[in-house]
Amino acid sequence: MEGFDFPEPMNQLIQRLRKLPGVGTRSAERMALWLLQEGKEHASELSKAIVAAADGVVRCPVCGFFAANGECPACGAKGRDESLLCVVERATDVLHIERSGAFRGRFHVLGGRLSPLDNIGPEDLTIGALVGRVEQGGVSEVILALGSDVEGEATAGYLARLLSGSCAKVTRPAQGLPAGGGLEGADALTLSRALHGRRSLD
Amino acid sequence: MEGFDFPEPMNQLIQRLRKLPGVGTRSAERMALWLLQEGKEHASELSKAIVAAADGVVRCPVCGFFAANGECPACGAKGRDESLLCVVERATDVLHIERSGAFRGRFHVLGGRLSPLDNIGPEDLTIGALVGRVEQGGVSEVILALGSDVEGEATAGYLARLLSGSCAKVTRPAQGLPAGGGLEGADALTLSRALHGRRSLD
Repeated sequence: MEGFDFPEPMNQLIQRLRKLPGVGTRSAERMALWLLQEGKEHASELSKAIVAAADGVVRCPVCGFFAANGECPACGAKGRDESLLCVVERATDVLHIERSGAFRGRFHVLGGRLSPLDNIGPEDLTIGALVGRVEQGGVSEVILALGSDVEGEATAGYLARLLSGSCAKVTRPAQGLPAGGGLEGADALTLSRALHGRRSLD
Repeated sequence: MEGFDFPEPMNQLIQRLRKLPGVGTRSAERMALWLLQEGKEHASELSKAIVAAADGVVRCPVCGFFAANGECPACGAKGRDESLLCVVERATDVLHIERSGAFRGRFHVLGGRLSPLDNIGPEDLTIGALVGRVEQGGVSEVILALGSDVEGEATAGYLARLLSGSCAKVTRPAQGLPAGGGLEGADALTLSRALHGRRSLD
């Protein structure tokens, strides 16, 4: 008796889809099946979109966000407050903050955070470019919007020391209770920081 | 002040990835980011794999599984028991059963199940082809490996009536407790069916 498997082109597709983040064998099979069932047009459009993005999108040499056709939407947006610089870990963090509508300055993408265990040091991040931007002048405040886990805090601490000689004020976003949440959902550390950073209602 | 978004090619890619089953906005962004970060080779390989599968893989006109280069791996596998025909809903079910190693006959993919609410009737499934295969002779048993929900049971009942005039025996896989699971995980219906189908250990 002889066993069998999917035809080779389908197996190849499943293997490729499995490499995507968050995609396991089951999901990859479901996606491949969907691509074959939905007709060639969908498959061809997705394939074209992948190539167009891979070929056309680069990292902005100034801020580290995504740029296409020589233009970075984050650096090119008009009417922004040039004196505010928000530092984030990943390029996708830029849009999370942008979509909140609470910040209308410029961004700087670090490309990660300091992590000695993973062998990620200052030279692996865009820290030199950040210092250069601040030293150029015109920046009155650098907001370190990095994660509040151990590595995020350590990176923020490192950057704060590095920028302490500049004219720019260095800040961190507030830590506290999430909007709309009750006290029972907050862990002890969050609660302690929320109480420590309490604000007067006067 | 002016807001901004990802560059257009990246937005297009995210929109396309979002159409894949089980992929939301966050996952699509993560995938797009990964495709851009991992370098062009990955993106180009995935894009090629999609086109190759969409162009090269078709449904086998006999059994409904996937075929490439004019060959269906399920129909072409040698040394199989031609007298056993296992009917499944989806093409991917074929490999789930094949990989279990418990069945070495032939397969027939229905392409779905009867569902009056979704306007899926017998003519939307490969029921005519199934009856044709059984009437050709040589099939001694038809195993209806369809889901055990309401629509799966209804489809199995319909097929059983349809095939009752043929020489082939019509069976359903056993229902009962999942292997390795305790009683506390089983719902009342599963437990009732497991007890009803109890087997002697003699």
